[in-house]
Amino acid sequence: MNQFFVYHRTIHFSDTDAAGVVYFANGLSMCHEAYEASIAASGIALQSFFRGTAIAVPITHASIDFYKPMFCGDCIAISLAPSLRSPAEFQIAYDLYFDREDPERTAIARALTTHVCIDSSTRKRCNLSDQLLKWINKV
Amino acid sequence: MNQFFVYHRTIHFSDTDAAGVVYFANGLSMCHEAYEASIAASGIALQSFFRGTAIAVPITHASIDFYKPMFCGDCIAISLAPSLRSPAEFQIAYDLYFDREDPERTAIARALTTHVCIDSSTRKRCNLSDQLLKWINKV
Amino acid sequence: MNQFFVYHRTIHFSDTDAAGVVYFANGLSMCHEAYEASIAASGIALQSFFRGTAIAVPITHASIDFYKPMFCGDCIAISLAPSLRSPAEFQIAYDLYFDREDPERTAIARALTTHVCIDSSTRKRCNLSDQLLKWINKV
Amino acid sequence: MNQFFVYHRTIHFSDTDAAGVVYFANGLSMCHEAYEASIAASGIALQSFFRGTAIAVPITHASIDFYKPMFCGDCIAISLAPSLRSPAEFQIAYDLYFDREDPERTAIARALTTHVCIDSSTRKRCNLSDQLLKWINKV
Repeated sequence: MNQFFVYHRTIHFSDTDAAGVVYFANGLSMCHEAYEASIAASGIALQSFFRGTAIAVPITHASIDFYKPMFCGDCIAISLAPSLRSPAEFQIAYDLYFDREDPERTAIARALTTHVCIDSSTRKRCNLSDQLLKWINKV
Repeated sequence: MNQFFVYHRTIHFSDTDAAGVVYFANGLSMCHEAYEASIAASGIALQSFFRGTAIAVPITHASIDFYKPMFCGDCIAISLAPSLRSPAEFQIAYDLYFDREDPERTAIARALTTHVCIDSSTRKRCNLSDQLLKWINKV
Repeated sequence: MNQFFVYHRTIHFSDTDAAGVVYFANGLSMCHEAYEASIAASGIALQSFFRGTAIAVPITHASIDFYKPMFCGDCIAISLAPSLRSPAEFQIAYDLYFDREDPERTAIARALTTHVCIDSSTRKRCNLSDQLLKWINKV
Repeated sequence: MNQFFVYHRTIHFSDTDAAGVVYFANGLSMCHEAYEASIAASGIALQSFFRGTAIAVPITHASIDFYKPMFCGDCIAISLAPSLRSPAEFQIAYDLYFDREDPERTAIARALTTHVCIDSSTRKRCNLSDQLLKWINKV
């Protein structure tokens, strides 16, 4: 059974918009940061992985639901749980909550991303690398 | 029956990431730009509307599906169609396609955002303004 | 003598921050958009130019001064004037002003970027392409 | 004499562009994050400080010089040193370097921001708060 990887993050001024809270699309960027941190923690080299020279793993679907506004300076935590969907595809579920003494772990937002492994030149689906499979099983 | 509002957009360098294509979360930002352009075209003043001084209309859900990669310099079009979901809530559906002589209008991506009208101080739901209702019915 | 290229732009919600105005670094992104539009107008293909496969033209210096705040929905114009500094280097000066019936063309901001042509693999300076020289002389 | 505040940061995928390195304007955003972390460490509440309800401290000038490219996954450090320029104005100098066992602390970039204290309603200059003066003298 998968354990969760948790990423800690302070809300930056650049994350916010004129309504005073986090701009909605930046909520997904923060989830992607959590994914990057988890990938790096598993030993995968981020630079070549995300540069996608031979194989790329683009996002084909993303969704996010917001329950609470996030303000500049808020400390949040993002837990993520990847799961295999097919030999070429995986999904990551994210839970965002306030990173403080909050026994109830109030949910701020919940997100989902789907990632498909492709050959960079043909852009056709191919199987996930062993490194990624190991990461999915370990996180 | 609603007609569609269409927004035209060139992909900027700042929209892209090291994989060479549009960063996924920026796809949603472009949809929001289309929403802003549509709102402005209906005569609503963007500055006060998005500042949310008395009433705010935050996004509670967003999702996007990608079918084709977008590269710096690509000219795209985004058509949007809002619909009322309840007295306090509306949804916008977005279609992204290449903005060129393409009789097939190849879909690049499809997105959805849900917006809820709230009182800025109490953050409780309230009814959409007449201006917004007019915009939803006209677009 | 160089004529100016002028780029027109509406301030998006995503450009703003919780202080209600354009986030400072986004002022430079808008200038870069003006540069991209000018480059594209001269016939240079943006995708390969900015992908930098053989030759890249990274920014080595950028500066910006702000005189007026910019709000969501504001329509602005950015005029740009490039100039050659050495066989491998050029600079672009940008003027931002409100895009409306304003005989005084009130300056909102003024910016500067320096670009150096390098070989992508060695990252050593090399001469600007004929295409870029033509663009600098024409704009 | 001022001591330096140091902020640690991993380069995110969203910081990069299609040239494979950090998008130039994002270099300044990272410096602003360092400023926010330093302000928060001094005990100033970020949310109200950056919301600028009574008094705001907008950036009137920013500049950055790049010496090395930054790639996704790179761990960097940003040291910052603020200095008072007038009763209403301060400047921050930033040094960016690789955050690793590098006895030479290779400079990646160097930046500067100027901040002016204004009354939010009149947008006229006013004196820096005691909190900010304390922060400038302590960092």
